[in-house]
Amino acid sequence: MTLKLYNTLTRKKEEFKPIDDKRVRIYSCGQTIYDDMHVGNARTYAAWDILNRYLTWKGYSVFHVMNITDVGHLTDDLDQGEDKVEKKAKELRLEPMELVTEQVQRWYREMKSLNMKRHNVNPRATGHMVEMIEAVRSIIENGYGYEINGTVYFDVMKFHRKHGYPKIGSMDIEQLKTGAGGRVSEDETEEKKSPIDFALWINADPEHLMKWPSPWGKGYPGWHLECSVMGTKYLGEKFDIHTGGIDHLFPHHPNERAQNIAMGDLDEEPVNYWLHSEHITTDGEKMSKSKGNFYTVGDLLEKYDFEVLRMFFASSHYRKQVDFNEEALETVEGNLEKIYNTLWNIENAKGGDKEDLEKDIEKMEKRFEEAMDNDLDTPKALNSIMKFTKKVNKGLDNSKEVLNKAKEKIQELGGVLGLKLDLETEGGKIPSEAIELMIDIREDLRKEGDYDEADRVRKVLRNAGVEIEDSEGKTRWKRTP
Amino acid sequence: MTLKLYNTLTRKKEEFKPIDDKRVRIYSCGQTIYDDMHVGNARTYAAWDILNRYLTWKGYSVFHVMNITDVGHLTDDLDQGEDKVEKKAKELRLEPMELVTEQVQRWYREMKSLNMKRHNVNPRATGHMVEMIEAVRSIIENGYGYEINGTVYFDVMKFHRKHGYPKIGSMDIEQLKTGAGGRVSEDETEEKKSPIDFALWINADPEHLMKWPSPWGKGYPGWHLECSVMGTKYLGEKFDIHTGGIDHLFPHHPNERAQNIAMGDLDEEPVNYWLHSEHITTDGEKMSKSKGNFYTVGDLLEKYDFEVLRMFFASSHYRKQVDFNEEALETVEGNLEKIYNTLWNIENAKGGDKEDLEKDIEKMEKRFEEAMDNDLDTPKALNSIMKFTKKVNKGLDNSKEVLNKAKEKIQELGGVLGLKLDLETEGGKIPSEAIELMIDIREDLRKEGDYDEADRVRKVLRNAGVEIEDSEGKTRWKRTP
Repeated sequence: MTLKLYNTLTRKKEEFKPIDDKRVRIYSCGQTIYDDMHVGNARTYAAWDILNRYLTWKGYSVFHVMNITDVGHLTDDLDQGEDKVEKKAKELRLEPMELVTEQVQRWYREMKSLNMKRHNVNPRATGHMVEMIEAVRSIIENGYGYEINGTVYFDVMKFHRKHGYPKIGSMDIEQLKTGAGGRVSEDETEEKKSPIDFALWINADPEHLMKWPSPWGKGYPGWHLECSVMGTKYLGEKFDIHTGGIDHLFPHHPNERAQNIAMGDLDEEPVNYWLHSEHITTDGEKMSKSKGNFYTVGDLLEKYDFEVLRMFFASSHYRKQVDFNEEALETVEGNLEKIYNTLWNIENAKGGDKEDLEKDIEKMEKRFEEAMDNDLDTPKALNSIMKFTKKVNKGLDNSKEVLNKAKEKIQELGGVLGLKLDLETEGGKIPSEAIELMIDIREDLRKEGDYDEADRVRKVLRNAGVEIEDSEGKTRWKRTP
Repeated sequence: MTLKLYNTLTRKKEEFKPIDDKRVRIYSCGQTIYDDMHVGNARTYAAWDILNRYLTWKGYSVFHVMNITDVGHLTDDLDQGEDKVEKKAKELRLEPMELVTEQVQRWYREMKSLNMKRHNVNPRATGHMVEMIEAVRSIIENGYGYEINGTVYFDVMKFHRKHGYPKIGSMDIEQLKTGAGGRVSEDETEEKKSPIDFALWINADPEHLMKWPSPWGKGYPGWHLECSVMGTKYLGEKFDIHTGGIDHLFPHHPNERAQNIAMGDLDEEPVNYWLHSEHITTDGEKMSKSKGNFYTVGDLLEKYDFEVLRMFFASSHYRKQVDFNEEALETVEGNLEKIYNTLWNIENAKGGDKEDLEKDIEKMEKRFEEAMDNDLDTPKALNSIMKFTKKVNKGLDNSKEVLNKAKEKIQELGGVLGLKLDLETEGGKIPSEAIELMIDIREDLRKEGDYDEADRVRKVLRNAGVEIEDSEGKTRWKRTP
């Protein structure tokens, strides 16, 4: 079976063919690290995590790069406004790199908590300043860049005549030129050759904090540049898949593509498949801090198990808008519980001598793969697992061997969707309430003279890291360090 | 009371006076991120963590930078050999930045697990390539650098005549010049003006992977350069405290100091206090992988609670060699348990009407501060806490108010040493063994007709995230997701 992916470049669902036989190289636009990860970011990263896991499951060797933007992303995507990191740092009265240091650690922690597979490289923009300056130089040398007053622009019309622009997304150059797309900056300066030219390198105001010396004076890189530079540095001039959110459809990805071609003076598309995930709404509206419907991953993880969130992400197709709300979470929580119930049923089953679940296992896997092959249809893939759990619950008289096979296959396919489905999570601490109950019970057992059982209580508590001590007719307890 | 610190620059214990009234700026040499953190690294970082916590406790506002070296540290500290990151990555068949991405995440995770306070900035060498190239340019301009065949050297003798070298440590320039210190590279090339000149920028062999274009051709920074650049970038040309391991005494810190002076053409010392922590041995010998006495923090955290490790680090003075071994850990574990016992005693005490512990609290705090003021004498500081716990155990007839004050002061001072001393760590999962015991007990209670108590068991388990279900005369349980 072959995987088909919806390619935003061609606006078609296409069969996926990697450049190398069994290696797949993916670049994903990651976090601008000025604020906490929110549920919309997480949904997008979960989509590419599933892409990575599914390709791995199909036998590919995946090299996955997701960048961390710590400089150059302005508050307005069209080269206007303040640097997002710098602005937020000023609000918090922090050094920009102090904010970045804190946020990077939080991001890594939360990505791990969300069971996202570690990316091979998470390059940071500030870590590639020399490479970015070199890239601007190449683009100028290749005739697609020009400098005015310390700012270097990309000559979009010149590029368009040879290679086409924007190519990614549904707008065309005429719409963009006349501003009919409504997305061209109104604050355009007169110095640009054309209003749709964008900045590769931006001359820094004196009060701008994050700036670097360059052949064009002190400045900082345009937002799009880092992805061109880091993508090609770690994946080569031409690679397989580039992913991002739908908000990258314009201007980020068309500009990145143009830069990649201009840097290398390429005659071919630098990336074969461009994938975009849709927006999330929360409580029926666009997520916004002022409306109080802004959900950070940190807050959500306080309230929900990561698996509920991953189940939510897998429950909708990545190219469909989805609303995040309490009710939706309850539904997925219920489904997750159904899967766990089935796994526990298997765990607790005595097992018989039937073997008819075997063919259902195969059927589930086939359905799962068909769904995933169809542009990563995760809701349908999940549905194949849900259907199978019903079969298992009715087929607990199958042999223990078949049942265990069923369990492992559920865990394997659930794993592709980012679930863990672990029945055992040991090593935790026993809650105080349970300790006190057990001490009461032990007291009763001793009164009744059942010292064996009372000792068993003490032993179990000790194994759980709790020491109990009887003195002056009272039992005290403490956790051992 | 005033803090005195042993300053390796002057070889004297000196009163600490910050440059700004209440702000302290610290730079600590951090991890070369090619391999897992080992217990020796952790001991050093714990020393500077305690320095930071103690200064904060004394009312200073601390800005603490610890770098992460991801390029430029060669296998031989004297500009010879391979880049450590690149070498290790090749062994593991990874891209260098793939290894770095993995190790940075691990490092952050383990630092957090060890209860190290987050540093304000953890700058990475690759994130400061432009700044390093600029620094080399300044050093050449100021007359202390010269280029030969794409490599730029620092002119040590010229620098020495004006500013003195090495200054940090006990060797003098004559010893170094003749190699009597035994630490000058034997593999010196003839191109250098003097064998003690060191590299600022190193010309890259064609097969070298991590290299950047520069005014002197493709190359990479010398190891010492990053600390000069990142220290001054985040802390200014002159700052308060610079820390590192004793292995940085030569050549790293003398070279860093020389660069800082040469970059800014300074007439004064760039750093007021240089602090160095001593080596650790393990099982009585120099730690080494081949000898099997190499302890990574990751492995230790599997086996020991972080607090046992922090207690071990606090139990010896940072300028004393210490041996890490099972027996030493058992001793500190015993002491940690004594502190916890005391806290539990307070927790469980009914309390009387005495108040004589008040003066002992003050005495403990005074002793603690005196010890810490004396070049961070953590073993003595810890001892003041240990002594106090004995007083508390005999004084449990003090009022509950005084006892609680005692408890809080123990936790506060323990916190300065990096301990948590938390009595409660909730939110964990109840171990399976305990669940099964409780189900057995519930069964017995039901048989005896004590349904209230049986229901309490069910309720407690439910609160702990465990559902039990009775069917077909059997009780099954599962964890709720």
